[in-house]
Amino acid sequence: MSRIIPNISVDCVIFGFDFNQLNVLLVERKLIDEKSNKVLIDDWTLTGYHILEEEDFDTAAARILKKMSGLDNIYLEQFYAFGGVKRVNSPKDMLWLQNQSEGFSERIVTVGYFSLIDNTSVTLSLKERNVKWFPISNLPTMGFDHREILEKALERLRAKLRSEPIGFELLPEKFTITQLQRLYEEVLGTTLDRRNFRKKVLQMKYVIPLDEKQKGVKHKPAQLFIFSREVYEKTKTERFDFSI
Amino acid sequence: MSRIIPNISVDCVIFGFDFNQLNVLLVERKLIDEKSNKVLIDDWTLTGYHILEEEDFDTAAARILKKMSGLDNIYLEQFYAFGGVKRVNSPKDMLWLQNQSEGFSERIVTVGYFSLIDNTSVTLSLKERNVKWFPISNLPTMGFDHREILEKALERLRAKLRSEPIGFELLPEKFTITQLQRLYEEVLGTTLDRRNFRKKVLQMKYVIPLDEKQKGVKHKPAQLFIFSREVYEKTKTERFDFSI
Repeated sequence: MSRIIPNISVDCVIFGFDFNQLNVLLVERKLIDEKSNKVLIDDWTLTGYHILEEEDFDTAAARILKKMSGLDNIYLEQFYAFGGVKRVNSPKDMLWLQNQSEGFSERIVTVGYFSLIDNTSVTLSLKERNVKWFPISNLPTMGFDHREILEKALERLRAKLRSEPIGFELLPEKFTITQLQRLYEEVLGTTLDRRNFRKKVLQMKYVIPLDEKQKGVKHKPAQLFIFSREVYEKTKTERFDFSI
Repeated sequence: MSRIIPNISVDCVIFGFDFNQLNVLLVERKLIDEKSNKVLIDDWTLTGYHILEEEDFDTAAARILKKMSGLDNIYLEQFYAFGGVKRVNSPKDMLWLQNQSEGFSERIVTVGYFSLIDNTSVTLSLKERNVKWFPISNLPTMGFDHREILEKALERLRAKLRSEPIGFELLPEKFTITQLQRLYEEVLGTTLDRRNFRKKVLQMKYVIPLDEKQKGVKHKPAQLFIFSREVYEKTKTERFDFSI
């Protein structure tokens, strides 16, 4: 059996959009004193753990995510390695690591992975530890430096959403501009001007208006659109790309 | 004194442009058998080494680069963590690590940093080991998986050059379109159509034509341009950035 590496871990920041808000997947870190029944620790962390001796980072991230949450076949992208000297700092962090009794080092570096999924389309299977989605706007107390790792991942996610079409595929195949705007507002954490948004979207050749409107809504039905990745790939240009 | 961490290192991929070609900074890895005088290893690696117990990744990268090459105050950007199980694989790699006798692990993960500088404006100070610039088009045999790390860094550098104005500041303040094209061709590793290139550059509002031509050249003097980062920052838009 392959042993864990005491000083190297991976942490997965799984963002989930549910058509309404942006969420992140967290795992409960709970420690109860057996004698007194006193709760010593009860907070939350990212889905992460130590890598094994015979395992690369990508494999470790997928294995650990699956083990902790049941999520499988999620596209995970490495985004940053965290090597701060004081990553494990608080008495709670120390206590937790001592209690795991797996021989962890005092200084652990971690490699961060992130993903953005439609979290209404997946089911979490609860394992030994409680795992659930939290809205980004209402996060619980988090252990270690996981809040910082989450912030860095969110920064990367936002930069990516601003420059690549990573949002469209989280919406229904046929979507309204309002649904798309909701996604951008939630991920970017801001409100956007409705008219400007609409104008920009209508200029995108890869967002194709249909001769079809919403059905079964109480309000005035809105026009539906589809996103074409093919058209996007064929028409995109980089600002300084002279080679195409 | 702070000890090294046996299984974690950083590696710096320093790219240098000399107005003519793209180079990379490498360090010689030479091992000679003391009895027979036989050369056991003679190849090249990136500037990299193990991090210390009391040191984060950024600090380690800057310290190690300075120690091995004399280069100081170089902007280093973390780009990827390499955790492959078989990174140290060849008999030469094993022999080198045994010979270092610093108690390295057999499995070492490394965090990659890269930078692009004008290498005519810096001076290398040779330390215990030979360090020098090699043209990307003519690389020597490289140890460990450093060729792969270099390729990944080059991929990142090229992506960055296509989307951000990272090249202009490597040229003289007043430059010709031909000089700029040379830089793009060398970094992208391709030849570009002269007319298309010129046309694209002339459309950039942040590349400003001067009423001034080259001096002291034998051929017909070309028009000079300056790059304005200020204009770039004020006019740039991201493809999917609805917030600006």
